[in-house]
Amino acid sequence: MKVKDLGEFGLIERIAKIVEYADERVILAIGDDTAVVKPTKLDYTLLTTDLLVENVHFTLNTITPWQLGYKSISVNLSDIAAMGGIPNYAVISLALSPETEVSLVEDMYRGMADVSRKYGLRVVGGDITKSDRLIINVAMIGEVEDSSLCRRSDAKVGDIIMVTGVLGASAAGLRIVLNPAIEKTVREAQELKKAHFLPEPRLKEGRILASIGINAMEDISDGLASEIKHICEASLVGARLFMNKIPIAKGVESVASLNGEKAIDIALSGGEDYELVFTAPKELELEIVESLAKIGTKVTVVGEIVNSSEGISIIDWSGSKKPLDISGYTHF
Amino acid sequence: MKVKDLGEFGLIERIAKIVEYADERVILAIGDDTAVVKPTKLDYTLLTTDLLVENVHFTLNTITPWQLGYKSISVNLSDIAAMGGIPNYAVISLALSPETEVSLVEDMYRGMADVSRKYGLRVVGGDITKSDRLIINVAMIGEVEDSSLCRRSDAKVGDIIMVTGVLGASAAGLRIVLNPAIEKTVREAQELKKAHFLPEPRLKEGRILASIGINAMEDISDGLASEIKHICEASLVGARLFMNKIPIAKGVESVASLNGEKAIDIALSGGEDYELVFTAPKELELEIVESLAKIGTKVTVVGEIVNSSEGISIIDWSGSKKPLDISGYTHF
Repeated sequence: MKVKDLGEFGLIERIAKIVEYADERVILAIGDDTAVVKPTKLDYTLLTTDLLVENVHFTLNTITPWQLGYKSISVNLSDIAAMGGIPNYAVISLALSPETEVSLVEDMYRGMADVSRKYGLRVVGGDITKSDRLIINVAMIGEVEDSSLCRRSDAKVGDIIMVTGVLGASAAGLRIVLNPAIEKTVREAQELKKAHFLPEPRLKEGRILASIGINAMEDISDGLASEIKHICEASLVGARLFMNKIPIAKGVESVASLNGEKAIDIALSGGEDYELVFTAPKELELEIVESLAKIGTKVTVVGEIVNSSEGISIIDWSGSKKPLDISGYTHF
Repeated sequence: MKVKDLGEFGLIERIAKIVEYADERVILAIGDDTAVVKPTKLDYTLLTTDLLVENVHFTLNTITPWQLGYKSISVNLSDIAAMGGIPNYAVISLALSPETEVSLVEDMYRGMADVSRKYGLRVVGGDITKSDRLIINVAMIGEVEDSSLCRRSDAKVGDIIMVTGVLGASAAGLRIVLNPAIEKTVREAQELKKAHFLPEPRLKEGRILASIGINAMEDISDGLASEIKHICEASLVGARLFMNKIPIAKGVESVASLNGEKAIDIALSGGEDYELVFTAPKELELEIVESLAKIGTKVTVVGEIVNSSEGISIIDWSGSKKPLDISGYTHF
């Protein structure tokens, strides 16, 4: 059945069944002029919004509707994680062609519902309209204590720079998707593709780090190099990265060599890893490593914050220092 | 200058200058992973989101960028008004072509900033991305007291049905825009076009009505007939409208006759009036009329809520009853 056969209100009814669940914090979900919810309780409310356009950000030839729903929510959860916060509510805007299969829309909302349940998010409303292509906007609300809030402008000279997990997996996964011929020669192909299609937000890690008292934090959506630049600009500091410390995901090396690239470049500039990069006083290093180890998350020191006059540099394998190439993703 | 010449971050900087203003409730606006604001204070938080796609919802041949910005915020404010609420914060997602003129984007944000200041809304963040056409998503947060919340499911048998202002102006304005040949023969053409391009949200009216203790309320975005249907379905009641009571805007009659239509049909099904339709106990009628008169807003009784078994009907000029034609706007 197609969307045009079911109609707007029929479609909304089906979606409501997928995303709604009993929750005393949700007063009115889908079906009035606005959603009505209990206010956030902590010191601050976090607001984020993210627009995905078919054939710009995704193509339905490569991602399944369920994955698309999952990822669209996950990347917004990652922004909440980067502030040290807790997610609460989301509203979804959707534009789609009347020719779209209803099952595609339902699968997408199932993906949204699944990741939402996993991380305590409530999808409480939205807007559905017509377009010749699929457009998804996720707007999300979270909350955080004043003491936990991690601004990108909070980095201090002398801080160590750390990242959670490993880098480059999502970008390597994308390269496999775009060039399926290389898939069977890369042993870790499944994991890399999973990192690309189903990134997991580092919400638990963000909360733990915020409670330990780290300084600046961001999620790595545009590539590590680019995020470091954002932190340095906002904090009026410089940074020094160590090339031999960057944790590169397994399989990135194979993909890079098959693609005529260097693994380190994919790890530094690939983007969409949705790991956290943060700065912290050096004396917190052990506590950070131990606390994240307890939830099974690796964390690595990749550099240090230096005086702004030194700029942003990377120490390469030979030990020589050169300016960091900031070639993260930019939209124009 | 085009967007591609300025780049993403240059554009964000310019936008930030237009929409940001000193406010103790905004902790971090544009420039981090999320916006950070003080939580809403009243019993409930209201959430709404609205997606506008170029050549589906608007065309830049007819609406100016400033008007587009103004209207995109205004229609969301109208949803907050319909709940009896107060607007607080908005985040904007924008997709645009790299070839877009920077001045177009700035003008649009000036329109957003102007209507936001007028109604106490703070634009605190957003997302900018690439597309071959202009896409705007506005996600908005408001708040309301438990005692003021106006659900569409709250209509009671015996209630009178009232509307603020006059109907059909926006739809008549659209007809003039689409057929400029008729513009000079319609004396009220400017007012009608203004109603279409620059609708004003009935926020003050919504607050006054909510405090008086009305029952169900909605804003008229899809046409009066369609909104009455929503209220009746949600409240499990019927409704009887009086054709000779529907307040029709000046000039709608001329546009209708030039267009081979009936003014009453435009008023009932035209949509985008952004007036409020609400139901209230009959004994509140005088208090409602007087309270809204004090702020210069006309309000008219257009019908009454009846038992669901009677369905939704309209009493025509001759006094005979017929089922109401529900032909409001639907997207598919």
